[in-house]
Amino acid sequence: MPQTPHTEKHFRASDTIRDVVIGMSDGLTVPFALAAGLSGAVTSSHLITTAGLAEIAAGSIAMGLGGFLAARGDAEHYDHELQREYHEVQTIPKQEAAEIIEVFEAYGVTAEQCAPVVAALRTNRDAWVRFMMRFELGLEKPESGRASRSATTIACAYIAGGLIPIAPYFLAANVTDALPYSVAVTLIALTLFGFFKGGFTGTPRLASALQTLLIGSVAAAAAFLLARLIS
Amino acid sequence: MPQTPHTEKHFRASDTIRDVVIGMSDGLTVPFALAAGLSGAVTSSHLITTAGLAEIAAGSIAMGLGGFLAARGDAEHYDHELQREYHEVQTIPKQEAAEIIEVFEAYGVTAEQCAPVVAALRTNRDAWVRFMMRFELGLEKPESGRASRSATTIACAYIAGGLIPIAPYFLAANVTDALPYSVAVTLIALTLFGFFKGGFTGTPRLASALQTLLIGSVAAAAAFLLARLIS
Repeated sequence: MPQTPHTEKHFRASDTIRDVVIGMSDGLTVPFALAAGLSGAVTSSHLITTAGLAEIAAGSIAMGLGGFLAARGDAEHYDHELQREYHEVQTIPKQEAAEIIEVFEAYGVTAEQCAPVVAALRTNRDAWVRFMMRFELGLEKPESGRASRSATTIACAYIAGGLIPIAPYFLAANVTDALPYSVAVTLIALTLFGFFKGGFTGTPRLASALQTLLIGSVAAAAAFLLARLIS
Repeated sequence: MPQTPHTEKHFRASDTIRDVVIGMSDGLTVPFALAAGLSGAVTSSHLITTAGLAEIAAGSIAMGLGGFLAARGDAEHYDHELQREYHEVQTIPKQEAAEIIEVFEAYGVTAEQCAPVVAALRTNRDAWVRFMMRFELGLEKPESGRASRSATTIACAYIAGGLIPIAPYFLAANVTDALPYSVAVTLIALTLFGFFKGGFTGTPRLASALQTLLIGSVAAAAAFLLARLIS
């Protein structure tokens, strides 16, 4: 199919990059905020690494397995609707043809104007079903094998992100020493991550960097204050 | 627009319900797994409520604010592309008309067959742009005000879900007493949530209930074993 020169600029993130972004956004933020929060309440850095690693295990499994089941659910939903459309173009072709016309009428195209398109689709059942899936139902065919790849990517990104704020608590002797290092490396990581992410999501890089920094800082400050308040 | 009788069955979750599901899935799972994990390593239930509430604060802010910025980013992306399409149908209408034909050619419809549709769209600029947004770029107009509503819904659902597993640690005198109650109420909550969720996502209710139960159990077991191992 010929590509017009500007088409590529419409590009947004691939599914894999989106999964890395999903996992790392939360992985950098929540274990960081938890560790900072506990630093306001406990003195043992061993306790913070224990809580931090437990959170990373829980969060990566919840997001990874959640991502797997969501992607598999999307694939099942697509297949289910695909079978229904095949069944309908077979058993109630007139109603399905009327639905093509409805799609066009929403754009001010009359039944007469789209009649040749309707006739063309009616001669090619596969194309007709694909057309209905995309234009009536707004469903895209999910990539096969996406569910397990998505799960692995999200979980690994969460773990990679989560280990950054926890690492200083392994290395420093006590919480008071570790906290400033954890804050410093995580704020740097959040900024770099936001900057990099902006390149893929279409948000200006600097705005994206400030946004991820804001989320991480607000979450950590809230957790810190809450933990200090109740301890 | 006339509705054929089966159209409604294609219904999936509304945006608000999807936000509740997003927030509560993680809210029920991660604080539960963290509390269960820490129960394998510490004896003070006060420490678990501190860590649990810090996690709920961090998680709800990360997800809520993340949801807000993601929804606002989608809205900005839509507006940006909308302006681009308006600009293009104005300045390079021939190329844009050729792109309509390309959309149809992917479904085996020839340039001749879709010529009346192309001609109709060219007489109505707003409909033409909407058509390109939806059918060339696959973008739907985001609901206005969605960003802040989405943020609030996700955050509240996370908090509501997260307080369920933590509550027993407030009420019981020690960790050993609280853990079985936390596990019991959370497994019941996960099952009910999964069952309810299945009704909206299209997954069979029983399968959905088993899935959310599985995610919560695996995450909690992993966190528990990990915390026990390193403590």
